[in-house]
Amino acid sequence: MSSVYPKPLRRLIQLLSRLPGIGEKTATRLALFLLKMPPDFVRELGNSISCIPESVIRCSSCLGIADEDPCSLCADPLRRDDLICVVEGPSDIVPIEKSGEFRGRYHVLGGAISPIDGVMPDDIHARELVDRVALGGVSEVVLATNLTAEGEATASYLGSVLKPLGARVTRIAYGLPMGADLEYSDEVTVGRAIKGRREL
Amino acid sequence: MSSVYPKPLRRLIQLLSRLPGIGEKTATRLALFLLKMPPDFVRELGNSISCIPESVIRCSSCLGIADEDPCSLCADPLRRDDLICVVEGPSDIVPIEKSGEFRGRYHVLGGAISPIDGVMPDDIHARELVDRVALGGVSEVVLATNLTAEGEATASYLGSVLKPLGARVTRIAYGLPMGADLEYSDEVTVGRAIKGRREL
Repeated sequence: MSSVYPKPLRRLIQLLSRLPGIGEKTATRLALFLLKMPPDFVRELGNSISCIPESVIRCSSCLGIADEDPCSLCADPLRRDDLICVVEGPSDIVPIEKSGEFRGRYHVLGGAISPIDGVMPDDIHARELVDRVALGGVSEVVLATNLTAEGEATASYLGSVLKPLGARVTRIAYGLPMGADLEYSDEVTVGRAIKGRREL
Repeated sequence: MSSVYPKPLRRLIQLLSRLPGIGEKTATRLALFLLKMPPDFVRELGNSISCIPESVIRCSSCLGIADEDPCSLCADPLRRDDLICVVEGPSDIVPIEKSGEFRGRYHVLGGAISPIDGVMPDDIHARELVDRVALGGVSEVVLATNLTAEGEATASYLGSVLKPLGARVTRIAYGLPMGADLEYSDEVTVGRAIKGRREL
């Protein structure tokens, strides 16, 4: 990095470069942009970042992120307690909530099993899910981990440990996405869409 | 933005979305990434941003950014005082310094003349440059504004106001860049490279 820039700016560029998808060029552009922004905005952004470690906590029920414990989803009296949807990360809850198709509780694993990356069942919140289901009162666990190798491995592992507890364990459907064109879809997806066909 | 996220995180996503090249998706990804980083890093990043308005000041001599006034480039006793290189923004100084071809002082305009965007000579630090040259002791002003329509308009304007003051005014060369292939170069650049040809 050029020593032409003032020291505080160089340090900021260094820190910003550690964020995902931000290289030194983008970090420099962002830092120079901040110089031109109103000081009030810059200070609010800085404080907003600084307070993240204190203000965002973990919900002790779903293990997702929250500003209060339990989080708004776990505290909502209108949601069903006997349905648990299992997701890899907090951001996976967003599309499910947007779909409006699920009105139960969540369980956030904080990752997916991936032996190749050294992520084993103990490294994600699998134990906590088993404990939760073992307490009873859960009629169905919907496994909504990603449809990737890691997500599938995680779903398969969770299925094997949850089924003995007597709960119904389901997996979200594989199939063709909205607007899909058969011609341009991969054969695995098409094959699974055919296997999963339903009566009209 | 989804209301699924804790409030402090939603506010951070909102603020990050105002940065250039960062949409809501990227802002969300960055905010969620910060949640996973060590609190010390997050706090240092936040503080580093918050203190930018106070710690980065304007050098009263070159009008560039600095942590002290005058900045390190203006204070360097080994640089020539009679040479002034005029650039649009602070980041333009970096490649010039890297080239090692200029050991004089700088003048940062803070923009370029662009009537279409409403940027007139009074909106950039043109007056300050004229005052600086009028003080005397300047043997050459190198106009290193960008080789764009705005940069050219700015150079042409500055030439017209600086030449009457008796200083030599030069413009950085147009030509083919390092590694250029004639076949794939635009005709304006090739034309200017031919016009600007030099004895070997």
